[in-house]
Amino acid sequence: MLNNKIPNLKVIAFDADDTLFVNEPYFQETEEKFCGLMRDYLSHQDISQELFRIEIDNLKIYGYGIKAYILSMIEAAMKISNNTISVEVIEKIIEYGKELLDKPIELLDGVEETLQTLHGKYKLVVATKGDLLDQRRKLHNSGLGKYFHHIEVMSDKQEQDYADLLKRLEIKPEEFFMIGNSLKSDVLPVLALGGYAVHIPFHTTWAHEKIDHKVEHKNFAAFEKITDILPLLGT
Amino acid sequence: MLNNKIPNLKVIAFDADDTLFVNEPYFQETEEKFCGLMRDYLSHQDISQELFRIEIDNLKIYGYGIKAYILSMIEAAMKISNNTISVEVIEKIIEYGKELLDKPIELLDGVEETLQTLHGKYKLVVATKGDLLDQRRKLHNSGLGKYFHHIEVMSDKQEQDYADLLKRLEIKPEEFFMIGNSLKSDVLPVLALGGYAVHIPFHTTWAHEKIDHKVEHKNFAAFEKITDILPLLGT
Repeated sequence: MLNNKIPNLKVIAFDADDTLFVNEPYFQETEEKFCGLMRDYLSHQDISQELFRIEIDNLKIYGYGIKAYILSMIEAAMKISNNTISVEVIEKIIEYGKELLDKPIELLDGVEETLQTLHGKYKLVVATKGDLLDQRRKLHNSGLGKYFHHIEVMSDKQEQDYADLLKRLEIKPEEFFMIGNSLKSDVLPVLALGGYAVHIPFHTTWAHEKIDHKVEHKNFAAFEKITDILPLLGT
Repeated sequence: MLNNKIPNLKVIAFDADDTLFVNEPYFQETEEKFCGLMRDYLSHQDISQELFRIEIDNLKIYGYGIKAYILSMIEAAMKISNNTISVEVIEKIIEYGKELLDKPIELLDGVEETLQTLHGKYKLVVATKGDLLDQRRKLHNSGLGKYFHHIEVMSDKQEQDYADLLKRLEIKPEEFFMIGNSLKSDVLPVLALGGYAVHIPFHTTWAHEKIDHKVEHKNFAAFEKITDILPLLGT
């Protein structure tokens, strides 16, 4: 387990959604509303399952983010209703999607303090697979933008995507430290490359991000709150 | 006009769509099909105008790219038909959108030769406001990926976006050279910052990218084909 100061560290990357600010609960709230629209056709659980199946199926063509989610909800509504859904329902889905894009920013505990402390000591970046425009808007509205050198948008967060990111940052894996709420996306691929990673779990996780085993690694630690990383960074 | 070798040059950035490969004609082909779906409601010109108005209106929330375009077509179909459009038409729009995402790559003349010549001499990047996933797929399928250090996805291509890009690349404006088919997005903001830019016009331009004046600047040149930039780069 990682419990000493990391030598040679150059870049600290933060996942955005559910690491810096609330995200998944907003998606879940939208999904509730979507299930409400479709309740004449299927049970809540079956609607969620069908939507999830279509989302995953569309990932390779649409990627991540809210626009992909809106398109998948529209497709699910047509599929679930066997094309008997009314245009007004599709209008509602687009409305819910636009509301989701416009949600207020709710910073997670300790985020501002952590960034304030690390700012100027390391190069801080945001590494996210969300949509660039969404993430820029969120950082701007959150007031956190000033702490970050820039945003890295990744089309996925698998090992190869992190290898590409390191190449682009022109650093070695051991100079890279990733902090996020997903073991699957923020931790495992970074450890596999030889980087450092810390997991800060959030109370709810998207089904697609779940893994069912424990992580043990000399370059890894799990903490309850983001401020717990500060002692590792000599601050 | 730019006609001498550029000193101190570090990064050459290429716009992607209609600079490296064909793009706008595919959008126009999709728009033709969309107008065909809606022909019972309005004239071709009025449908195009309504779609364009909705696209521009959605830019600030959806940004650029094909997913935004699909969502705007759906919204336009509902608006134009006063919500009397059938769900099957919306299904068709999504199908056209997915076809657009899956178009074959058609390289423009001289692109491969240009990249081959410059590769290894400068850091080459793609600077695009399209969708990251789309652009990565296109570069991968085109075989051009090997020539580029990485892709820079920009949420817009205004002066501030280029200033952010230079900060991220850690270079000065005079070390940056941009090549693209849009005077508005690829040339003017780069010149305003003190960088170098070359315009390679494409035979068709999206209405949103058009400007109505001539550009004259010591750091600027317009060429017919992309290989014409090579003498400026000492190759």
